[in-house]
Amino acid sequence: MKPILVYQTDFTYKEGAVCAMYGVVKSVDHDLEIIDGTHEIPKFDTWSASYRLYQSMAFWPKGTIFVSVVDPGVGTERKACVAKTSDGYYVVTPDNGSLTHLKNWVGIEEVREIDENTNRLKGKNTEGVSVFHGRDLFSYCAAKLASGKITFEQVGSKYDVKHIISHAMHEPVISEGHALGIFEINDPNFGNIWTNIPLKDFFEAGFDFGTRVQLTIRHEGQVAFSQKLLFEKSFGYAEPGEPMLYNNELMRVAVAVNRGSFSEMFEIGYGPEWQVEITK
Amino acid sequence: MKPILVYQTDFTYKEGAVCAMYGVVKSVDHDLEIIDGTHEIPKFDTWSASYRLYQSMAFWPKGTIFVSVVDPGVGTERKACVAKTSDGYYVVTPDNGSLTHLKNWVGIEEVREIDENTNRLKGKNTEGVSVFHGRDLFSYCAAKLASGKITFEQVGSKYDVKHIISHAMHEPVISEGHALGIFEINDPNFGNIWTNIPLKDFFEAGFDFGTRVQLTIRHEGQVAFSQKLLFEKSFGYAEPGEPMLYNNELMRVAVAVNRGSFSEMFEIGYGPEWQVEITK
Amino acid sequence: MKPILVYQTDFTYKEGAVCAMYGVVKSVDHDLEIIDGTHEIPKFDTWSASYRLYQSMAFWPKGTIFVSVVDPGVGTERKACVAKTSDGYYVVTPDNGSLTHLKNWVGIEEVREIDENTNRLKGKNTEGVSVFHGRDLFSYCAAKLASGKITFEQVGSKYDVKHIISHAMHEPVISEGHALGIFEINDPNFGNIWTNIPLKDFFEAGFDFGTRVQLTIRHEGQVAFSQKLLFEKSFGYAEPGEPMLYNNELMRVAVAVNRGSFSEMFEIGYGPEWQVEITK
Repeated sequence: MKPILVYQTDFTYKEGAVCAMYGVVKSVDHDLEIIDGTHEIPKFDTWSASYRLYQSMAFWPKGTIFVSVVDPGVGTERKACVAKTSDGYYVVTPDNGSLTHLKNWVGIEEVREIDENTNRLKGKNTEGVSVFHGRDLFSYCAAKLASGKITFEQVGSKYDVKHIISHAMHEPVISEGHALGIFEINDPNFGNIWTNIPLKDFFEAGFDFGTRVQLTIRHEGQVAFSQKLLFEKSFGYAEPGEPMLYNNELMRVAVAVNRGSFSEMFEIGYGPEWQVEITK
Repeated sequence: MKPILVYQTDFTYKEGAVCAMYGVVKSVDHDLEIIDGTHEIPKFDTWSASYRLYQSMAFWPKGTIFVSVVDPGVGTERKACVAKTSDGYYVVTPDNGSLTHLKNWVGIEEVREIDENTNRLKGKNTEGVSVFHGRDLFSYCAAKLASGKITFEQVGSKYDVKHIISHAMHEPVISEGHALGIFEINDPNFGNIWTNIPLKDFFEAGFDFGTRVQLTIRHEGQVAFSQKLLFEKSFGYAEPGEPMLYNNELMRVAVAVNRGSFSEMFEIGYGPEWQVEITK
Repeated sequence: MKPILVYQTDFTYKEGAVCAMYGVVKSVDHDLEIIDGTHEIPKFDTWSASYRLYQSMAFWPKGTIFVSVVDPGVGTERKACVAKTSDGYYVVTPDNGSLTHLKNWVGIEEVREIDENTNRLKGKNTEGVSVFHGRDLFSYCAAKLASGKITFEQVGSKYDVKHIISHAMHEPVISEGHALGIFEINDPNFGNIWTNIPLKDFFEAGFDFGTRVQLTIRHEGQVAFSQKLLFEKSFGYAEPGEPMLYNNELMRVAVAVNRGSFSEMFEIGYGPEWQVEITK
């Protein structure tokens, strides 16, 4: 059975770009199955691209091929690559930070630069186009790999995994009764925001479900939020409209407002400049 | 041939949650086909979830399995269930009002509570997660059912259909030359709003295409709109920008503005507090 | 292998309409594969529908069936048709301008009006519905055609390709060192805007990558933008925030702001009233 192609881009579905990419895949091999991961990564945001790959990958069958096209540097010197993770997935992507979390948290076993001579679409008036590698390079190469027309080795030359571009990562500092981290990413629909503090470490530091803890959020050093909040397993333990701490889907501490939006209600964002401190 | 899985949620496609759910399905059985019903149900809105299931279900092959995850009470006491409709479809859903229209208008033949011991995803660092039954419970159980790994009976214990949580339903009152109902739901893209008045009853009350009728809309008792409008088969019979009454896709009376938005132009919503009165 | 059905509509995914259409397809033939082209064509915009068909079609396997439902005249006198292009694709669509670019740039080999007697869905309480040909007529007919239940000839009566409704097209005027055209369409997500000036002609007029050229944009005759800009192969050659000219994915001259939005930054739209003049 051929591996599935799971796509994520920052293209949205507002025009025909996704459709053109999928046509390329189906023209390589009519049998290939394509799944929309998301086409709503924030524009140019390779950090989010990286996090979204990490968020869902482990739930897919081994061998699944992810095509990630958040590519502000398309047509310039940045590398186009296929990475193989330590746990057996493939990612077809520009090498521009989109592999940050997989490299740091999962491991990349091998990475190869896509050879444009052999693995770029030819014809269809595409030869002079430099702005749509999602269609002409990534989709075409991914489809050939998925269909078995090329092996991973035939993608192109191997290069050192150490040279994969990576954003800076921030590790939390946790001790008895105290956790210091950052907001790493959000859930933009529900307005939840996710810290980099693992539940396991948080429990070991003495925090427990059903208690109230002190949360202080600092933005570039300034206090942006400071309240004592319920820490619970799920949203419904708080009153509607009440902010709370909970354990998110990736076993990390996160903030929410039950039936509301924490990020909107308190105007809180994410990124390394958003520091989170939790005490009993 | 295995049944198709049709999904609807209030997750949107803005992050990786849908992708994680679909990965779970494909990890249970690579062959299963997944179709996006919609991931844009308004947040926490189990009434809309219920209506959308009703809106499209009858057009699918018998045996199709709908996975509906609008689940503000995730991780609390609300039941997780699989319902079998009287006409032979399955719905995997929290029992929280999402089955209202199917229960009232189609009929539920049998309902079973999902057994978390046997039908919840194990491993992948999910054991302590309480906030994502869409991934860990509903998708996993639905995929097992669709793939034939479990029977409907093996979903879990049967419970009384009467105990399925249901929103209040509102029946229209129709007599010669007079129809009184509510706006039940909208078409949020085009700004059309749909009443609960069946075309058949409306015709029997003496109304007819090609005539003008008096529409009065009251919001919490106050008149919000009152005009004589064209009643016709389709939008194009009205002038561009003209409000009108028409027969919607489910054979119920609805309002629209040709090439415009009724709900925006006149600031009209839907729900039991929006009363509709139509006279000749 | 059966042809794929590629959908584009202006329905969005906010409610159950897309789901109902796909159910009709799967009820005709469980095997058919459905791909989302886009459901975010601007409402009622048959010009965009036409352009999006052209944008992606050539990348699909020959025989692919496109279902395009941007249909403000649904239920009125406009024809419902299936067109066969000169290069071997099918389009199931209202004949309302949605075939403009294919007719003018690719060629329509034959067009047939859908016979509602034989190729419209029956039952399921749809007989009195006039507002949803996307479900009852286009999806049903397209699915029958894709599944082989009907031939192209059995769609309905052939009519003269010359009678296909077409929007006016605007040809650029290009001479040595001078190009005069219009903005034909945009990329609404990234804010790029695409002219109707082919790169080939632009090169022949003496323009070259890596140079700066004078761009003047007029809206209804008034100058809306006038600057000397870099013309390059891709966005990343300009500074972040810098407007530029580039060669787009369809080998036409276009404008962008690197990591920004040209259309938002300078409030520029598209259509025949937006004239573009480029000089050295």
